[in-house]
Amino acid sequence: MTDLLDFVSLSLLPPWCWRVAAEWLRRGDPSAVVVRRLLAYSPRDAAGNAADVPSLAADAICRADAGSIAAIPWSAPAYPIALTTIADPPPVLWTRGCPVVLSAPSVAIVGSRAASPYGLAVAERLAADLAASGLLIVSGLARGVDSAAHRGALSAGGVTVAVLGSGADVIYPAEHVPLARAIDATGAVISELVPGTRPQQWFFPLRNRIISGLSRAVVVIEASEKSGSLITARCALDQGREVLAVPGNVLSGKSRGAHALLRDGAKIVESADDILEELGMAAAGIRAAGAGPGPATGAPGRDPVLDSLVPGEASDLDEISERSGLNAPRLLPRLFELELHGLVRRIGGGRFVRIDRTC
Amino acid sequence: MTDLLDFVSLSLLPPWCWRVAAEWLRRGDPSAVVVRRLLAYSPRDAAGNAADVPSLAADAICRADAGSIAAIPWSAPAYPIALTTIADPPPVLWTRGCPVVLSAPSVAIVGSRAASPYGLAVAERLAADLAASGLLIVSGLARGVDSAAHRGALSAGGVTVAVLGSGADVIYPAEHVPLARAIDATGAVISELVPGTRPQQWFFPLRNRIISGLSRAVVVIEASEKSGSLITARCALDQGREVLAVPGNVLSGKSRGAHALLRDGAKIVESADDILEELGMAAAGIRAAGAGPGPATGAPGRDPVLDSLVPGEASDLDEISERSGLNAPRLLPRLFELELHGLVRRIGGGRFVRIDRTC
Repeated sequence: MTDLLDFVSLSLLPPWCWRVAAEWLRRGDPSAVVVRRLLAYSPRDAAGNAADVPSLAADAICRADAGSIAAIPWSAPAYPIALTTIADPPPVLWTRGCPVVLSAPSVAIVGSRAASPYGLAVAERLAADLAASGLLIVSGLARGVDSAAHRGALSAGGVTVAVLGSGADVIYPAEHVPLARAIDATGAVISELVPGTRPQQWFFPLRNRIISGLSRAVVVIEASEKSGSLITARCALDQGREVLAVPGNVLSGKSRGAHALLRDGAKIVESADDILEELGMAAAGIRAAGAGPGPATGAPGRDPVLDSLVPGEASDLDEISERSGLNAPRLLPRLFELELHGLVRRIGGGRFVRIDRTC
Repeated sequence: MTDLLDFVSLSLLPPWCWRVAAEWLRRGDPSAVVVRRLLAYSPRDAAGNAADVPSLAADAICRADAGSIAAIPWSAPAYPIALTTIADPPPVLWTRGCPVVLSAPSVAIVGSRAASPYGLAVAERLAADLAASGLLIVSGLARGVDSAAHRGALSAGGVTVAVLGSGADVIYPAEHVPLARAIDATGAVISELVPGTRPQQWFFPLRNRIISGLSRAVVVIEASEKSGSLITARCALDQGREVLAVPGNVLSGKSRGAHALLRDGAKIVESADDILEELGMAAAGIRAAGAGPGPATGAPGRDPVLDSLVPGEASDLDEISERSGLNAPRLLPRLFELELHGLVRRIGGGRFVRIDRTC
């Protein structure tokens, strides 16, 4: 629990601390040392006294417990590996629902709050079809495209994750409380903000990096030119994720942002197949891959990733990347697949261990 | 007139003759020689006799005269230079209306016959805006997007050209007779087929190479996957023209062909400005350029094209291309501009002469 307290303490520090915290943690500094070092710059109260961050952290953990919110620190095996690879991973993911789903291969679907019936219909259709193919659908629970994506995934019996710009127990907009409950019944509602945090405007752009960071691809539907979805798309590019966009009506102006992305090289999406193809997944290949090794894309064999792992010895992404010659965007999907096949296991701090079945 | 008779004779031969005819004419063979050589392969009637092509040609010229249709052979200065650059230029353009407009900088707008109200609205809007910027709008007089483009150009007081898959005096579909009359009042209705020719299915794909060949860019709106508009787009690419496409509804399937073009690298069009920008034309620059030399894009100066022309000496495109170092797609727009400024003049057979005002 000391470890968790350290990470919750980190998450109470200003977000600009997280990037440097991640750097120090990645090079092997113990979390307690990182926290202590950063607390030298910790926020002060009105009287000029340093806030008692560890005690605030302990309070937050208690509140989370009371509200059935799991706190998943960066160091935990349940922390999604994809998020560990971004420059500024959240120190803690506060999670309602099923934390295990966070590690599934996922696609983010984001777009306008003021979407047209067309935008809503496309979001729902794509989410349903991708979810039916076994992909996790990630979005932001906002009005418009976000909630249509969540609903589409649920309508297909799929799994979806909502990333909030408020505490995981503060559903915004309030009309989405029933949707949030439906989401966390089989998926998860998550936030990097301690439980009880009210939504604030500047939380949402920050939140967007988590939506893209969790996902292998971000699909943008009906974003205007100043849409937050474009921030998500930019995060995705920075993080080496695929960016795709759905074209739409050029007269309404509602797709101007999506079209700008297409102009800049985003892949065009007409159907879920376009996304699956871009991810190198056959239309029905994901669920099947979960069943065990086979001749599908996930099949092991002379695999550069497996070959770079010594059974029983933990390696982090940098090491695997160096040995296999694959960069993170190429490495992660393969690690996902190997994990699905039970050939590698993730352990804390974004490290992997090979499980050799013949041993 | 012998020259015209030669070219009309050529146009009565099967289309597969035209490419080789163009090659021979370009290397300088007299038209009479080319015709004589090809007549050895001329069509035969039921009795096995060679058809009397020259007399059929003379008849066609008489019919055209009677119907106020101008016959513009490949060798005439009025023959649009852009068309002379394609591999298989029509030997003759049969033209109702104003042949002079054929040489204006132009954009083709093509698309589905069964367009949605959205497709029709976009075609009309783009054509109106481009025509208002001084561009000639080229299309095929078909139902749907084609006729919407013609109407849009006319609504803005602009000029438009319809390229038919039948004789210039055989308007198909018949309901477009009033539209054709409105078009040729200020623009032109043209065909490579001798007057009186009824429409046949295989004429239309052939006709499409003229639509693209006349134009600097082809804009595709709401083409399905098997649309003839995709043939026009392929011709455009072969001819070194720009291809652009308008995105649309992904659920209706009506824009599947347009989206396929975007996937293959076509530029995305939301407004006329996107097209003008792609052509290197400021939004209001075209009409202004027609007024005379100035500081706009068309301004002369140390110009590689002008420098490669000796005043009073005719040069063909190959020669200008070699001397200036510009390939045809880059060379043609510049020649258009220099012609607008009165600095070069076109003469027969796709050749140019520099007009030196200081001489």
